[in-house]
Amino acid sequence: MLSGDPGRNDARPDVAVVGAGPVGLAVAWRCAQRGLRVVVHDPAPGSGASHVAAGMLSPVAEAYFGEHELTGLLTESATRWPGFAAELTGTVGAGIGYRTEGTLVVGLTADDLAEARRLWSYQQGLGLPITPLRPSALRDREPALAPRVRGGAVAPGDHQVDPRRLVAALRTAAERAGVRWRPAAVGSVSEVDARVTVVAAGCGAAALTGLPVRPVKGQVLRLRAPGGGPPGFRHVIRGYADGESVYLVPRDSGEVVVGATVEERADTEVTAGGVLRLLRAAVDLLPELAEYDLVEATAGLRPGTPDNAPVIGALPGRPGVLVATGHHRHGIVLTPVTADLVTELIVTGEPDPLLAPFAPDRFGPTIEEETCD
Amino acid sequence: MLSGDPGRNDARPDVAVVGAGPVGLAVAWRCAQRGLRVVVHDPAPGSGASHVAAGMLSPVAEAYFGEHELTGLLTESATRWPGFAAELTGTVGAGIGYRTEGTLVVGLTADDLAEARRLWSYQQGLGLPITPLRPSALRDREPALAPRVRGGAVAPGDHQVDPRRLVAALRTAAERAGVRWRPAAVGSVSEVDARVTVVAAGCGAAALTGLPVRPVKGQVLRLRAPGGGPPGFRHVIRGYADGESVYLVPRDSGEVVVGATVEERADTEVTAGGVLRLLRAAVDLLPELAEYDLVEATAGLRPGTPDNAPVIGALPGRPGVLVATGHHRHGIVLTPVTADLVTELIVTGEPDPLLAPFAPDRFGPTIEEETCD
Repeated sequence: MLSGDPGRNDARPDVAVVGAGPVGLAVAWRCAQRGLRVVVHDPAPGSGASHVAAGMLSPVAEAYFGEHELTGLLTESATRWPGFAAELTGTVGAGIGYRTEGTLVVGLTADDLAEARRLWSYQQGLGLPITPLRPSALRDREPALAPRVRGGAVAPGDHQVDPRRLVAALRTAAERAGVRWRPAAVGSVSEVDARVTVVAAGCGAAALTGLPVRPVKGQVLRLRAPGGGPPGFRHVIRGYADGESVYLVPRDSGEVVVGATVEERADTEVTAGGVLRLLRAAVDLLPELAEYDLVEATAGLRPGTPDNAPVIGALPGRPGVLVATGHHRHGIVLTPVTADLVTELIVTGEPDPLLAPFAPDRFGPTIEEETCD
Repeated sequence: MLSGDPGRNDARPDVAVVGAGPVGLAVAWRCAQRGLRVVVHDPAPGSGASHVAAGMLSPVAEAYFGEHELTGLLTESATRWPGFAAELTGTVGAGIGYRTEGTLVVGLTADDLAEARRLWSYQQGLGLPITPLRPSALRDREPALAPRVRGGAVAPGDHQVDPRRLVAALRTAAERAGVRWRPAAVGSVSEVDARVTVVAAGCGAAALTGLPVRPVKGQVLRLRAPGGGPPGFRHVIRGYADGESVYLVPRDSGEVVVGATVEERADTEVTAGGVLRLLRAAVDLLPELAEYDLVEATAGLRPGTPDNAPVIGALPGRPGVLVATGHHRHGIVLTPVTADLVTELIVTGEPDPLLAPFAPDRFGPTIEEETCD
């Protein structure tokens, strides 16, 4: 059990967080709010997977076959998002692009629709809020969808946030709560001097902990609506288009994020084939996107794990070391619950039962694994 | 008639060139070689159409129906290219990416092949060197072509150069020949103090001369072969792919230039639709390009004219003002002949008969026209 003691003179931090992505920053912010002395180590805050991420908060549309426990955590975190967003934006006085118009899941061809339907039937079977729409109802919601789109469903509780603005807001909030910064890379956990060290270094956690966290490359495009206005659609659109899976995330600024490839590779090159697949699917689903400017093409590395679920909790055999990584495609939606549960674990010394399926010891002893860089 | 007089004290330049693209730089270099005092005005040398251009030297594959006189000039300039390249690279001691493997013209579908064949039959009718190939012969030359490619032809005399290296070499050669630089924009020809002013300002010539030069937007991609090696093909490939026209230009450095859209627009935004069309056609013709890195997407403005031919010669009603612009898709191949003929015109006062079809007065009196910027 760890508690802050403002009166003590000891300069040693209570908590060191390695990694200033959304998870690390939110952990730091929450810990500082509890009176703990917190230091965050990162030579380039916000430069990892979150810089590329689209920011979909999709507990429903991301509920996949055989990932029941992950779905539970996604849902739990999504319920915390409205309060988290309100507290954060209230604290820093700046927006984070939090939008609640909901998500449409659509299929371009009959085969695509069958694939989409198979998944949303599973999601409905779990009692999750996703509702099939007649084609006319789909077009009433988003007239810009291609006439070819065969059908779809709406997940009204699947929202979005802008990860780059989220990181900026978390940095400000953490700093105001007293968090200090160490802008240097950490080569080994033993270099870090703190009562508790939290490794929230994304793919970098593999080298620091020996956990089987592997890089999963994602290529993402950013388009911009012509003429300076907002995009011609308001929902997040997740589509299947000739067997390709794509999402389209509209922002108030006019930006549209188009993502993402899922590649078992550790490089961050943007490839002709990746961009082609994303653009073809995007334009097939929403033809007006052909007229949008292509302003950015980037690739990032998601921290993946053997069971696609995050790794959150005490590192076996390393007293005082916790990990919070392996969030894969779900780092943004899982930020609030991860920060809350890690902070509780630090303060109370007891893991919340919610964390049981995600404990680091589920992979057995340390495994050597390819690292992200 | 203008000749240099090294003995005179007068600091007034003999020749001022407005525009430091390949044409302007080559004119400046040639004039300086003749002993003339030359000044080049440009705030950003090499930043216009040539920065985006692929550098195909294609008198044959660019010979279009109804452009007989332009074809003659293209052919004339192409015959000057080997000597021009040798002289330039010998002068500066650096390469310009001049390559002579020739060009393959290919059609993906039966319709594409019919379109390609119609044009190369016309070119053969003019006596130009282009030879149909059996599919097996096509694949012997470039095994990386997609199996779907239905057929093609070879134009062995259609070569390539790297326009960015060309500009760099011309700047060095011009400087060594005594050319001086004025790195400022020219708002009006009357600002320029020289015995002869040559307006070689690409699209910018419209505002300076009143000639009907209009911007024709082109979007171009630059890919890079993975692993640091050269591309997996050696010919320039000009293809028709599902009705889309595309070219693929391999460089020794591993770069592949993929171009180009032809759009009657004056902006230089890269659009999702433009990139999609180029990538789709490129990957359909040469599937391995999907694995190449996409390293650059840019758009430039070609200086187009009503008859697609350049405007080279004396500006009517403006003694001492010559123009050399309107080269549209052909600025690189036409650089040697343009420089030679403009220099002769300056030195002798008499236009070469080759220039007759390209005289500025063929469009009648000055016409107001949209400018490029």
